[in-house]
Amino acid sequence: MHRTRVRIVEDALDANNTIARANRDDFDRHGVGVVNLMSAPGAGKTTLRERALDDLPGVRVGVLEGDVAGSFDADRLSLLHIPVAQLNTGAGFGGECHLDANMVRTALPALPLAELDLLVIENVGNLVCPAEFRVGEDARIMVCSVTEGEDKPLKYPLMFRACELVLVNKIDLLPHLDFDLDLFLHHLDAVNPGARKLLVSARTGDGVEEWREWLYYTAQGAKATA
Amino acid sequence: MHRTRVRIVEDALDANNTIARANRDDFDRHGVGVVNLMSAPGAGKTTLRERALDDLPGVRVGVLEGDVAGSFDADRLSLLHIPVAQLNTGAGFGGECHLDANMVRTALPALPLAELDLLVIENVGNLVCPAEFRVGEDARIMVCSVTEGEDKPLKYPLMFRACELVLVNKIDLLPHLDFDLDLFLHHLDAVNPGARKLLVSARTGDGVEEWREWLYYTAQGAKATA
Repeated sequence: MHRTRVRIVEDALDANNTIARANRDDFDRHGVGVVNLMSAPGAGKTTLRERALDDLPGVRVGVLEGDVAGSFDADRLSLLHIPVAQLNTGAGFGGECHLDANMVRTALPALPLAELDLLVIENVGNLVCPAEFRVGEDARIMVCSVTEGEDKPLKYPLMFRACELVLVNKIDLLPHLDFDLDLFLHHLDAVNPGARKLLVSARTGDGVEEWREWLYYTAQGAKATA
Repeated sequence: MHRTRVRIVEDALDANNTIARANRDDFDRHGVGVVNLMSAPGAGKTTLRERALDDLPGVRVGVLEGDVAGSFDADRLSLLHIPVAQLNTGAGFGGECHLDANMVRTALPALPLAELDLLVIENVGNLVCPAEFRVGEDARIMVCSVTEGEDKPLKYPLMFRACELVLVNKIDLLPHLDFDLDLFLHHLDAVNPGARKLLVSARTGDGVEEWREWLYYTAQGAKATA
């Protein structure tokens, strides 16, 4: 029984990768850099993104907002006057706990790709399944909050291994937590030694400038290779 | 395509419920109360459970520990000298992001049900899929940390609706957060007006006595109806 299940999963991932390549071709044709933003629920994806996108000179940004239900983050983002498409996995997609390439493809017509330099795809808050589905992105970013504990890289290794950048968020809370930052970074190195790491606080703005620079160069890189 | 997908999901849930009933029968026969503990990654399930189980007089407790990978929580729990079975969804179950009734059934022979009053099943950290799969439990408990934001009940309604008890954890951090507790409780009431709520801090011990009492009466209730 398990063998059948694995086969079905492999077929689904093959189909996903085919659609991810089609998305990738569309992004390349328009010279749009694409990042896939992933985290556990409540790690601070939306606030960190608002912080960065609110002041990213010379980069035209769009957002694809993935949620099981609701449009709270999209509503917040629309205040920044940037193109936002809301993608609910609950409606029509069976309440999926992640975005896949086909869901993203379905939402692309709602975004003016030709007028964008950078597309930020905010995944559903979940540390398991989003890591398994490429959607055609240039880079995967993981937001991990220091309130979540030092063991998370070891408990969710696929997710931490899948990303190029890890934003370690809520560092303003460190004085109030029993959290060993060195131990966390040691665990992170153990599962993904190559990942870039940035210590940030969406609340105080610490580290946000470096995160903006990283996004800026990702957008420039995509334009250069278009 | 979506219709086929929904059909497959429904069949899987029917099969799950059949096995959940078999688990339920086994629990009833032994007079074991069973709770299914769910939360986002890092909300504090393990620490809250350690706090409660460390001092629960007259209740013989066992734990079934669900994780994608690793046995960190089970190792921690073994220090409390209670029966613990580790269930990894990564090995043999395709890296699933939740526990289902069949996984729990597979692990039951590793636990001495006849010698237990209360079995705590710790689910994989995830706010989406665990809510869809009953495993034969008496009650579902959700741990939500105040660091996760006020919007979580609205973004993950199925999970908040599925539980009988919500533990609002990490309240010791409230002075350091921009978190509106009243707004969070208002959102929680909107999706699940019947849920019992306890404000707790695994760090300071606030509210843990009430959470112990709740577990105590759940175990007594199961024994009375066995």
